Amino acid sequence: MNKERMGRILQEMKNTGVPQMIVSDPVNIFYLTGKWIFPGERMLVLLLKTDGSAKLFVNELFPIHEDLGTENITLNDNQDAVGVLAPYIDKNDVIGVDKNWPARFLIRLMDLTGVTKFVDISNITDKVRQRKDKTEIDLMRESSRVNDIAVDKMIELVPKKYTEKKMGEILLETYRSMGAEEFSFDPIVAYGANGADPHHTTDATSQLKEGDSVVIDIGCKKDSYCSDLTRTVFYKRASEEQKKVYNIVRDANLKGIDKVKPGVRFCDIDAAARDYIESKGYGKYFTHRLGHSIGLEDHEVGDVSSVNENKVDEGMIFSIEPGVYLPGNFGVRVEDLVVVTKDGCEVLNKYSKDLCIVE
Amino acid sequence: MNKERMGRILQEMKNTGVPQMIVSDPVNIFYLTGKWIFPGERMLVLLLKTDGSAKLFVNELFPIHEDLGTENITLNDNQDAVGVLAPYIDKNDVIGVDKNWPARFLIRLMDLTGVTKFVDISNITDKVRQRKDKTEIDLMRESSRVNDIAVDKMIELVPKKYTEKKMGEILLETYRSMGAEEFSFDPIVAYGANGADPHHTTDATSQLKEGDSVVIDIGCKKDSYCSDLTRTVFYKRASEEQKKVYNIVRDANLKGIDKVKPGVRFCDIDAAARDYIESKGYGKYFTHRLGHSIGLEDHEVGDVSSVNENKVDEGMIFSIEPGVYLPGNFGVRVEDLVVVTKDGCEVLNKYSKDLCIVE
Repeated sequence: MNKERMGRILQEMKNTGVPQMIVSDPVNIFYLTGKWIFPGERMLVLLLKTDGSAKLFVNELFPIHEDLGTENITLNDNQDAVGVLAPYIDKNDVIGVDKNWPARFLIRLMDLTGVTKFVDISNITDKVRQRKDKTEIDLMRESSRVNDIAVDKMIELVPKKYTEKKMGEILLETYRSMGAEEFSFDPIVAYGANGADPHHTTDATSQLKEGDSVVIDIGCKKDSYCSDLTRTVFYKRASEEQKKVYNIVRDANLKGIDKVKPGVRFCDIDAAARDYIESKGYGKYFTHRLGHSIGLEDHEVGDVSSVNENKVDEGMIFSIEPGVYLPGNFGVRVEDLVVVTKDGCEVLNKYSKDLCIVE
Repeated sequence: MNKERMGRILQEMKNTGVPQMIVSDPVNIFYLTGKWIFPGERMLVLLLKTDGSAKLFVNELFPIHEDLGTENITLNDNQDAVGVLAPYIDKNDVIGVDKNWPARFLIRLMDLTGVTKFVDISNITDKVRQRKDKTEIDLMRESSRVNDIAVDKMIELVPKKYTEKKMGEILLETYRSMGAEEFSFDPIVAYGANGADPHHTTDATSQLKEGDSVVIDIGCKKDSYCSDLTRTVFYKRASEEQKKVYNIVRDANLKGIDKVKPGVRFCDIDAAARDYIESKGYGKYFTHRLGHSIGLEDHEVGDVSSVNENKVDEGMIFSIEPGVYLPGNFGVRVEDLVVVTKDGCEVLNKYSKDLCIVE
């Protein structure tokens, strides 16, 4: 167990009045123990109590050879896993449950214990994980360093007119050659009007045309930590409108970044970028939140959105990714990751945001 | 909506006394609507009632252009999604919930409605999905046809002594060249003692040595349907013990297959293979269930195990995969998929199970 992280979790449990909690998310378990266990459909639970006890319920198919600092209770496929867990639960107290614990386990636990006082304790793990420690910030910096190199490679390849799918394959090779494990999300390389769909799925058919915008939204996982970056370039030429929109979006990105420092609300950061885009007349074409928190997962709790009134704090890492999407025409998005510092933020992505026309 | 499948779901809801159910699993939603929607962390719910109504709650980020035969209620990121869903729930009745619905939604629904009468209705969807219809059997046959070709390629490559990781990369290319989308699970190509760990993860370092067993456990998704096949071969030579164990495992596979027909219990099929391995003195080295159901997912409900006393029925598809694992030495597993027919079964994998020593 990572003592410092466990200490912060226990403190947060006490602060929120949750005496026991079922941690089931492999990401949270990795965060605390340093070990990835992917149990598939089988039950995996780290039961934490405010007395500091940590019991790991894990199927024998995933043998634990190292000392994780947990007491391990081994399950097998012939057991009712929740039945093994239930006696360790204090039935007279609130039970905290990880946000993604599947209903089949939760309903079974209700049936076995009669307890219905459950709380979603992901606010606890999410809150602790939201503030990255030094080790994590170093790993996030490294993941984004690799991503900066990768986006340069992608932009360099634009004139090759590869299919979006082929670009994705080269991207994965590029990441792996630098020691990254995998994509942090399915990469988007969207040509022309495809870039006007913010959730466009890369396909195998689209071909690049002169005057197209190219939205490249990519990220990798390196040493388990995610990067996420978007650059938009133009192929051969850019129309006046494309240039205008590009500059608006890039400046909105900068205005968002400028706003970041401890104590500022997420919604104020969103507003800094959104108000600017609105003032330029493109507000209705910026159709999503400004950003999202990121770390061990590409999307973590802590939206940079108009409805999130929480304040940002030192160590938080999130994206600043304004976009303008003109349906059927083109799209522009410019995204960086930032880590909140004592009095502002550090932009993890160093790759240029100057208007770029690729020949 | 696939009318025949929906009809079977509604019938099953009536049979089990569940008047309303929250279907959230993208696989179940694809099964009924023919549309894949991957909502990530956002809520996606198909609310079914026994009056035949089908309401789809879906975030606007995943626009539905086609007519799915559902009434669509569009959500956005600024809404409390469960708050939108709650008024459509009948609070005086049992609420069925998909087995994997995340606790954050379920706990929120409990908070909003005060209802605590939830049932895991995956027995309904699982039961219906367990019996494949003709369209599905055709697709499963095709996926396994592709897998047979792929395992041949893998065996042919054994003498190249590629790392297990490299083998995986070639395998993915092989699948894609035949139109498959992706792996149905992370492939296992385990050399020597690695093959004695039934859940060995393919790594980038292991090297093949003369006399090694090679366990190749692979599968793809083609047109969304999974294949899953294991063959074990030997490199250059096989010891007498390796040959003996191979024949025991292969014969156990055949004995399992022979047992399959409608009305037989899953546990009896497991026993047919297990008892044989035990009679040969290797029972303690066969450390897992005989098989698992498969279809849109690699592992579906319906274990072929000693504790599953349900009877098999026409149209069910599952694996028969006995194995013997001698720790630190070698492992053998032989796996086929079978579909239960009117009076027996059809083996979907046609690839030879003769003892194979690769030169």
